This record gives sequence, C-alpha cells and structure tokens, in this order.
Amino acid sequence: MFSPLIKELMESLRCLPGVGPRSSQRMALHLLERDREGALRLAKALGEAAEGVGRCRDCRTLCEDDRCDICAHAGRDQTMLCVVENPSDVMAFEQAGGYRGRYFVLMGHLSPIDGIGPDDIGITELLQLVTKNQVSEVILATNPTVEGEATAHYIAEELKRRDVEATRIAHGVPLGGELEYVDGGTLAHALAGRRKLVT
Amino acid sequence: MFSPLIKELMESLRCLPGVGPRSSQRMALHLLERDREGALRLAKALGEAAEGVGRCRDCRTLCEDDRCDICAHAGRDQTMLCVVENPSDVMAFEQAGGYRGRYFVLMGHLSPIDGIGPDDIGITELLQLVTKNQVSEVILATNPTVEGEATAHYIAEELKRRDVEATRIAHGVPLGGELEYVDGGTLAHALAGRRKLVT
Repeated sequence: MFSPLIKELMESLRCLPGVGPRSSQRMALHLLERDREGALRLAKALGEAAEGVGRCRDCRTLCEDDRCDICAHAGRDQTMLCVVENPSDVMAFEQAGGYRGRYFVLMGHLSPIDGIGPDDIGITELLQLVTKNQVSEVILATNPTVEGEATAHYIAEELKRRDVEATRIAHGVPLGGELEYVDGGTLAHALAGRRKLVT
Repeated sequence: MFSPLIKELMESLRCLPGVGPRSSQRMALHLLERDREGALRLAKALGEAAEGVGRCRDCRTLCEDDRCDICAHAGRDQTMLCVVENPSDVMAFEQAGGYRGRYFVLMGHLSPIDGIGPDDIGITELLQLVTKNQVSEVILATNPTVEGEATAHYIAEELKRRDVEATRIAHGVPLGGELEYVDGGTLAHALAGRRKLVT
C-alpha cells in the first residue's frame, strides 16, 4: 500500500546486511519523515563510493587512491607484511596499535567449495609484493576458522619455497573474561602454545 | 585509516535508525566488497524518494502523488475516518484487513514539551476533511501511550463541538500469549471494558 518510490526505497534498503522487511520499512519511513537531508547525503556517499572506490595497488585493500594511506606511508616497515582477510582486520590491528609494518588484504579466504582459489584472493600479487619489497617476515593473520587456517597454511607453503619466513598470530585465551567460558579448542591451543613465564 | 570516500559512506549510514559505528562499518564494507549494484540502486532510490515523496492532499500520509492510493480509491467509504499517528499504522490496519473507510495520518502526536501542537499534526486539515467528506464517525487509533491518548482526547473534544461521533479503538489483552504476562494497566483496561458474551 506504500507508493512506488517508498516501496522501491524499502526494497533497496534490503541490500544492507542485517536489514529485513521490518527494519527496511522503519528506516525508509524514518528518513522520509525526519531526515531527508541524511537520505540525500547517504545517496551521494553511496554513489561516490560505489563508483570511486577501488583497490590499493600494493595491499589490495579498498581505497580510492592508487595506493592506500598505509602503503603510501614512508615510515611503515615494508619488509614486514601482515596478511589479513578483510579491510576491517587492518582497522582492528591499527586500533590495537604497536604494528609498524604493512598489510596485505586477501579480501576473502580460500574456499574450494565456493570455487575461490589462490588467484581469487590475490596470492600471486602477494608473492610478487613479497619479492618486490624484499619482505623478511610474513605474519599470517587470517581468521582462526577452518578456511582461515587453510589459507594461512597454503601461503606459508608458498613462502617456504621462496625462503621467506612465515609466522602465524598466536591462538590462545583472549584477555579478560573467565577461563570456564573459553571453548575447548581455544583452551587446547592455549595449553599447547604455553611459554615459560620467567626466562 | 579508511579512505575519505569509505569514511564518508560509514558516517552517512549512521543516519539510519539503529545503525551505530560497528554496523555502519560492516554495511559499508559489505556494499563495497560484494554489492556495488545494490549500493547504486539504493543511492538512486534514496535520492528519488527524498526529492519526490510528498504528502497526500487528503490524509497527509507519505506518497509521491497528489492523493494516496487509499484516498483516490472510489470504493473506500469516505464517511468513516481512522486517525493514526504514522504511515506504518495505516499499513498495519490494511494488513489486518476488514476496514473499508479512509485514514488520516497525523505524522506524530501532541507533545507540548517538544513544542508540537495541534497545527503541527494537521488537526485543522483533519477537521476540514471531516466537514468536506461529511464524515459520520472518526475512529481514533493513535498509539496507546500517554501522548497518543492525549491526542485522541483532544481530537474527540474538537469533534464533539462539531457533532461528529468520535470512537477510540478498544484497549484490552492482545490475542495469543498468556494473561500472566500482560501488564497491569492493560489488564485493568480489559476488565473495565468487559462485554457480555451472550447478548
């Protein structure tokens, strides 16, 4: 019973992750009743980003310039490369602080079932970058999932053949919280990866 | 650390109700990584709706035509008027089915604290419509909140002066569910509004 423009707006909003029929209706009516300025700003931002955002030449993350801020930053150690699955993982590491090397963003992980092979996640480009920048250590920071682990191992094998050191971020219990709520797999990893406290 | 276009997209998404910093990031990256077509479609829909959607001349609901589908429908009884707060309330009644009259959408409720008076919610237009269409019954279906009740009573007083019958939708226990979970106010209303079962 909504008019065509409102219906189309509601349907278009469904492209957003986590937005179903109820929330798309709420969002559309909210924008039309109370925030048309916001709607126009969002329309502009969506158009410009969808048309203008590409990939960084070096690390393949999303950005509109030829190279992203981090790859273009002279102060970042280019011989250290941290491989992550998504742009948001870069953000997570940057917010955690302490890392001064560079990144490589796979934009996914190996997934043979879905037909996603090494070429689809830029492993050729990764190996080229490793050679070009004379990278001495590649930190594999893919997600601690089955696919993430498989991807990390695949890359590690490729790097071994090229005599480049590959390391994997530590698996263990996260800081804060209580041990009894940590899952068994994590606990087993934490136990196997134990280290001497006083060395 | 995201590039300007991506940052602007994330910030613009915050105009959507219920979207905070985490979900705006997830939404922006999802669109850029996986659904640029959806992003462009949404941009177009937002722009067209924000520029093109106005108010129905009669019932004041959101629509891009001079009159909405319901007001333009010759088969709807124009002597019966259901007053609601929002366009989504019209939708709720239409989905429930059974009502063949017309609507009037206040687009809000009286709220003296926020400076929202009778003129801001179109009560003058409502009274004009009642006269124009020779409305015989106005069903007050504002929300069962303090503001909704106050708005209903204000309109009822105005209609009484014009000798037009005003009714209020029934308050009582909702269908389904169990009595023990119904709040006291609702239960008291349900009790006070009891009716003979066999008449």
